[in-house]
Amino acid sequence: MEGDVGKGLVCPKTMDGKASNNNGNGLEKTVPSCCLKAIACVPEEDAKCHSTVVSGWFSEPHPRSGKKGGNAVYFNNPMWPGEAHSLKVEKVLFKDKSDFQEVLVFESATYGKVLVLDGIVQLTEKDECAYQEMIAHLPLCSISSPKNVLVVGGGDGGVLREISRHSSVEVIDICEIDKMVIDVSKKFFPELAVGFEDPRVQLHIGDAAEFLRKSPEGKYDAIIVDSSDPVGPAQALVEKPFFETLARALKPGGILCNMAESMWLHTHLIEDMISICRQTFKSVHYAWSSVPTYPSGVIGFVLCSTEGPAVDFKNPINPIEKLDGAMTHKRELKFYNSDMHRAAFALPTFLKREVGSLQAS
Amino acid sequence: MEGDVGKGLVCPKTMDGKASNNNGNGLEKTVPSCCLKAIACVPEEDAKCHSTVVSGWFSEPHPRSGKKGGNAVYFNNPMWPGEAHSLKVEKVLFKDKSDFQEVLVFESATYGKVLVLDGIVQLTEKDECAYQEMIAHLPLCSISSPKNVLVVGGGDGGVLREISRHSSVEVIDICEIDKMVIDVSKKFFPELAVGFEDPRVQLHIGDAAEFLRKSPEGKYDAIIVDSSDPVGPAQALVEKPFFETLARALKPGGILCNMAESMWLHTHLIEDMISICRQTFKSVHYAWSSVPTYPSGVIGFVLCSTEGPAVDFKNPINPIEKLDGAMTHKRELKFYNSDMHRAAFALPTFLKREVGSLQAS
Repeated sequence: MEGDVGKGLVCPKTMDGKASNNNGNGLEKTVPSCCLKAIACVPEEDAKCHSTVVSGWFSEPHPRSGKKGGNAVYFNNPMWPGEAHSLKVEKVLFKDKSDFQEVLVFESATYGKVLVLDGIVQLTEKDECAYQEMIAHLPLCSISSPKNVLVVGGGDGGVLREISRHSSVEVIDICEIDKMVIDVSKKFFPELAVGFEDPRVQLHIGDAAEFLRKSPEGKYDAIIVDSSDPVGPAQALVEKPFFETLARALKPGGILCNMAESMWLHTHLIEDMISICRQTFKSVHYAWSSVPTYPSGVIGFVLCSTEGPAVDFKNPINPIEKLDGAMTHKRELKFYNSDMHRAAFALPTFLKREVGSLQAS
Repeated sequence: MEGDVGKGLVCPKTMDGKASNNNGNGLEKTVPSCCLKAIACVPEEDAKCHSTVVSGWFSEPHPRSGKKGGNAVYFNNPMWPGEAHSLKVEKVLFKDKSDFQEVLVFESATYGKVLVLDGIVQLTEKDECAYQEMIAHLPLCSISSPKNVLVVGGGDGGVLREISRHSSVEVIDICEIDKMVIDVSKKFFPELAVGFEDPRVQLHIGDAAEFLRKSPEGKYDAIIVDSSDPVGPAQALVEKPFFETLARALKPGGILCNMAESMWLHTHLIEDMISICRQTFKSVHYAWSSVPTYPSGVIGFVLCSTEGPAVDFKNPINPIEKLDGAMTHKRELKFYNSDMHRAAFALPTFLKREVGSLQAS
């Protein structure tokens, strides 16, 4: 499968945050697509990466006019070269630059309101349920009575909304670097920002690595890393020192759930992430979910547990169906259930070959 | 979830093949997207539906220049209004009109060669494994020793390739209406057309309903309907009389696997299909798979069995891993395995609510 996905190119492994072949225009000719997520947009090329609405459509990556004029368009993005997804825009609701990224909100024709950061769709009202419910309940239903939970990123509040279904939880810390994301969510995405209203939530605006260094060792039962792609502010969040910091903040037998890209597009990035996690954690598993508006229609999660009591991720010992009121807290569950939990760990044969041997049980 | 998916519109149920609101331009304003698949492109509107490559990109639906000129583009397709997926084209390899549809083949930048019928992506070399392997092995691994198998559609040969992994199979009939699809596949998609080389394959060019009427009653252990969307030549294949014809051609305890759209986009169409199948079959189940280049990144399957020995679709009694040579016959399995089989029947909560009560066990 490697040859199919990477078109025969050898992956230069970019998990150290540096791209070995970052030579500008020729990117997709020399580096397989699975590795390109780690290459940040450079300022002088920003126009390539960020969001534009052309004639009532938003495209990811955004369309640019052809050199010969006319109706020509083309798309180019080093993160998923050769393809683009477009959504019809009814109305642009918000567009501004924060200290960290460009923030865009628009009302789409068929996916509800859409949040875009640096030109990349983060969520739509129609399919956010899949991402938020899976990234929260895959870890929290894998341990009994989670008490202290940390969210890294997740400024839209959707993951908080999901965590709050668990009545065993006493503390929900969230460390988000970009306050504008929170403000925008509170204004335009009340169904997500409702997560901030839970009195157990303690909001910390700042850098997650710094926050974690100051956290007491072994504080958390679970940490959920709901970061954006490893480009821009989230780049440090896929490097080994960060995973070590996460492990330190977890209890023995504590668990991490980390957003982990597309199995169809970023097999090498997933392999790298699993390799790094194996050096730090006792057990490492990969799971995935359908999310239509993410590239290739899927998103993955790396689930890890620290040394301590064994965690059987694949069979939820804390099933959501048995938690009092969890199914309807704030709003009804739309996507997750215990069947979907177990199914999320079934991997296509090509991915099993690539990462199966890397997974510790 | 109904309100979210259908944007509050009431589905007029179009499974009888007639659209109740087919008023041309205003389509997506009056009919929810889930119902629009049943509305055929009318000849005078053909330009809307078919395939065009603009400045090196193919888009589904294809982009059209804006009325004001310039770089304006917009997309419009009644099948999935409000979104579009684009693939970068390296080279157009074939474009012609058959008696039934427009056939386009191009080499894409990152998905290998792509087959497009009437402007709709049918398969790409990168992700065809998911569709072909799932639609073939979900049924064939659910019964022991399948012998007589019929494929309806499937002119590219990919499903034949997968069926031929099963050494118990003695006869593989295929009824494809459009010879051009077969010829094009033999020329441009040898990894799929290899399926036609199996001596057990008997090719019938023609209308499937007519073919089935002439078939002996109770001939087949399994029928796989690998049709294109229920638009154009495939429109009759989602109506009740056709399902009755299929049931008649199956043995007692025989099974049907029918392509069944996207759970994210076409919930009502799926509900209708399940309702119709329940009237004809003993048990009816829904399964789904990730396929990046299909709209919303997923495709579903309706699996049915006729009166007779019970079939437990969710737990393959004929696991592919135990079939001699099946994993590597013609080429290695890339996607399907027994874990993926079981996982395919796990349904998101919103879909369980909609179709769960309709499923007979």
